[in-house]
Amino acid sequence: MVTLVIYDIDDDTVRKRVAEACLDTGLERVQYSAFRGDLSHNRRQELRIQISELMRDANGNIQFYVICDKDMRLSKELDYPLDREAQ
Amino acid sequence: MVTLVIYDIDDDTVRKRVAEACLDTGLERVQYSAFRGDLSHNRRQELRIQISELMRDANGNIQFYVICDKDMRLSKELDYPLDREAQ
Repeated sequence: MVTLVIYDIDDDTVRKRVAEACLDTGLERVQYSAFRGDLSHNRRQELRIQISELMRDANGNIQFYVICDKDMRLSKELDYPLDREAQ
Repeated sequence: MVTLVIYDIDDDTVRKRVAEACLDTGLERVQYSAFRGDLSHNRRQELRIQISELMRDANGNIQFYVICDKDMRLSKELDYPLDREAQ
Protein backbone atom coordinates (compact mmCIF):
# COMPACT_ATOMS: atom_id res chain seq x y z
CA MET A 1 0.00 0.00 0.00
CA VAL A 2 1.27 3.43 -0.96
CA THR A 3 0.63 6.39 1.32
CA LEU A 4 0.24 9.80 -0.28
CA VAL A 5 0.22 12.89 1.92
CA ILE A 6 -0.74 16.25 0.47
CA TYR A 7 -1.15 19.48 2.37
CA ASP A 8 -2.03 23.15 2.34
CA ILE A 9 -0.41 24.80 5.37
CA ASP A 10 -0.27 28.56 5.90
CA ASP A 11 2.60 28.77 8.37
CA ASP A 12 6.06 28.41 6.80
CA THR A 13 7.68 26.92 9.90
CA VAL A 14 4.93 24.39 10.50
CA ARG A 15 4.89 23.46 6.81
CA LYS A 16 8.63 22.80 6.92
CA ARG A 17 8.24 20.66 10.05
CA VAL A 18 5.43 18.61 8.51
CA ALA A 19 7.63 18.04 5.44
CA GLU A 20 10.45 16.88 7.72
CA ALA A 21 8.08 14.52 9.55
CA CYS A 22 7.02 12.99 6.22
CA LEU A 23 10.64 12.52 5.16
CA ASP A 24 11.67 11.13 8.56
CA THR A 25 8.83 8.59 8.35
CA GLY A 26 10.23 7.34 5.07
CA LEU A 27 8.12 9.16 2.51
CA GLU A 28 9.66 10.72 -0.56
CA ARG A 29 8.89 14.26 -1.68
CA VAL A 30 7.09 13.95 -5.02
CA GLN A 31 5.87 17.54 -5.27
CA TYR A 32 6.31 20.71 -3.28
CA SER A 33 3.42 19.77 -0.97
CA ALA A 34 3.11 16.04 -1.68
CA PHE A 35 4.92 13.08 -0.18
CA ARG A 36 4.57 9.43 -1.11
CA GLY A 37 5.89 6.05 -0.04
CA ASP A 38 5.19 2.63 1.38
CA LEU A 39 4.16 2.82 5.03
CA SER A 40 2.76 0.22 7.35
CA HIS A 41 -0.55 0.97 9.04
CA ASN A 42 1.32 1.73 12.27
CA ARG A 43 3.82 4.08 10.66
CA ARG A 44 0.97 5.87 8.91
CA GLN A 45 -0.84 6.27 12.22
CA GLU A 46 2.32 7.59 13.89
CA LEU A 47 2.79 10.12 11.12
CA ARG A 48 -0.82 11.29 11.47
CA ILE A 49 -0.36 11.80 15.20
CA GLN A 50 2.93 13.62 14.70
CA ILE A 51 1.38 15.91 12.09
CA SER A 52 -1.61 16.59 14.34
CA GLU A 53 0.80 17.70 17.07
CA LEU A 54 2.65 19.98 14.65
CA MET A 55 -0.63 21.42 13.37
CA ARG A 56 -2.03 22.13 16.81
CA ASP A 57 -1.85 25.90 16.40
CA ALA A 58 -1.74 26.10 12.62
CA ASN A 59 -4.26 26.51 9.83
CA GLY A 60 -4.30 24.00 7.07
CA ASN A 61 -5.69 20.96 5.36
CA ILE A 62 -3.93 17.61 5.33
CA GLN A 63 -5.02 14.63 3.25
CA PHE A 64 -3.73 11.09 3.69
CA TYR A 65 -4.47 8.70 0.86
CA VAL A 66 -3.88 4.98 0.93
CA ILE A 67 -3.49 3.56 -2.55
CA CYS A 68 -3.29 -0.15 -3.37
CA ASP A 69 -0.89 -1.54 -5.98
CA LYS A 70 -3.70 -2.07 -8.45
CA ASP A 71 -4.72 1.60 -8.25
CA MET A 72 -1.09 2.72 -8.44
CA ARG A 73 -0.79 0.93 -11.78
CA LEU A 74 -3.66 3.08 -13.08
CA SER A 75 -2.05 6.23 -11.75
CA LYS A 76 0.20 8.41 -13.84
CA GLU A 77 2.90 10.99 -13.24
CA LEU A 78 4.08 13.35 -15.95
CA ASP A 79 6.98 15.78 -15.92
CA TYR A 80 6.80 18.72 -18.29
CA PRO A 81 8.32 19.51 -20.64
CA LEU A 82 7.46 15.93 -21.58
CA ASP A 83 10.10 13.38 -22.27
CA ARG A 84 8.60 12.28 -25.59
CA GLU A 85 9.69 8.71 -24.93
CA ALA A 86 7.52 8.59 -21.82
CA GLN A 87 4.21 9.52 -23.44
CA MET B 1 -13.21 5.22 -8.66
CA VAL B 2 -12.01 8.57 -7.43
CA THR B 3 -9.55 10.58 -9.51
CA LEU B 4 -7.11 12.81 -7.66
CA VAL B 5 -5.03 15.31 -9.62
CA ILE B 6 -2.17 17.14 -7.94
CA TYR B 7 0.28 19.47 -9.61
CA ASP B 8 3.30 21.70 -9.34
CA ILE B 9 3.22 24.22 -12.17
CA ASP B 10 5.54 27.22 -12.38
CA ASP B 11 3.57 29.42 -14.76
CA ASP B 12 0.64 31.25 -13.14
CA THR B 13 -1.47 31.40 -16.31
CA VAL B 14 -0.98 27.73 -17.17
CA ARG B 15 -1.66 26.72 -13.57
CA LYS B 16 -4.93 28.64 -13.63
CA ARG B 17 -5.94 27.00 -16.92
CA VAL B 18 -5.14 23.52 -15.61
CA ALA B 19 -7.27 24.27 -12.54
CA GLU B 20 -10.12 25.38 -14.81
CA ALA B 21 -9.76 22.19 -16.89
CA CYS B 22 -10.04 20.10 -13.71
CA LEU B 23 -13.15 22.00 -12.59
CA ASP B 24 -14.73 21.85 -16.05
CA THR B 25 -14.21 18.08 -16.12
CA GLY B 26 -16.18 17.79 -12.89
CA LEU B 27 -13.45 17.61 -10.26
CA GLU B 28 -13.71 19.56 -7.03
CA ARG B 29 -10.87 21.66 -5.69
CA VAL B 30 -9.78 20.02 -2.43
CA GLN B 31 -6.53 21.94 -1.94
CA TYR B 32 -4.80 24.80 -3.69
CA SER B 33 -3.12 22.38 -6.13
CA ALA B 34 -5.30 19.30 -5.71
CA PHE B 35 -8.58 18.31 -7.39
CA ARG B 36 -10.68 15.25 -6.74
CA GLY B 37 -13.83 13.60 -8.02
CA ASP B 38 -15.45 10.66 -9.73
CA LEU B 39 -14.45 10.43 -13.37
CA SER B 40 -14.99 7.71 -15.92
CA HIS B 41 -11.94 6.27 -17.64
CA ASN B 42 -12.78 8.31 -20.75
CA ARG B 43 -13.21 11.59 -18.90
CA ARG B 44 -9.93 10.98 -17.10
CA GLN B 45 -8.19 10.38 -20.41
CA GLU B 46 -9.73 13.52 -21.89
CA LEU B 47 -8.52 15.56 -18.93
CA ARG B 48 -5.00 14.15 -19.30
CA ILE B 49 -4.92 15.10 -22.97
CA GLN B 50 -6.28 18.58 -22.23
CA ILE B 51 -3.69 19.14 -19.50
CA SER B 52 -0.91 17.89 -21.77
CA GLU B 53 -1.96 20.49 -24.33
CA LEU B 54 -1.97 23.23 -21.70
CA MET B 55 1.43 22.12 -20.40
CA ARG B 56 3.04 22.03 -23.83
CA ASP B 57 5.34 24.97 -23.13
CA ALA B 58 5.28 24.91 -19.34
CA ASN B 59 7.39 23.39 -16.60
CA GLY B 60 5.71 21.24 -14.04
CA ASN B 61 4.78 17.91 -12.59
CA ILE B 62 1.27 16.47 -12.78
CA GLN B 63 0.13 13.37 -10.96
CA PHE B 64 -3.12 11.53 -11.63
CA TYR B 65 -4.18 9.02 -9.01
CA VAL B 66 -7.02 6.57 -9.34
CA ILE B 67 -8.34 5.49 -5.97
CA CYS B 68 -10.91 2.74 -5.42
CA ASP B 69 -13.70 3.02 -2.86
CA LYS B 70 -11.95 0.62 -0.49
CA ASP B 71 -8.82 2.78 -0.47
CA MET B 72 -10.88 5.95 -0.09
CA ARG B 73 -12.36 4.52 3.10
CA LEU B 74 -8.80 4.21 4.49
CA SER B 75 -7.97 7.74 3.44
CA LYS B 76 -8.34 10.69 5.75
CA GLU B 77 -8.72 14.43 5.44
CA LEU B 78 -8.18 16.79 8.34
CA ASP B 79 -8.84 20.51 8.57
CA TYR B 80 -6.86 22.44 11.16
CA PRO B 81 -7.58 23.87 13.60
CA LEU B 82 -9.29 20.52 14.23
CA ASP B 83 -12.99 20.26 14.76
CA ARG B 84 -12.69 18.25 17.96
CA GLU B 85 -15.81 16.30 17.04
CA ALA B 86 -14.11 15.00 13.92
CA GLN B 87 -11.05 13.48 15.56
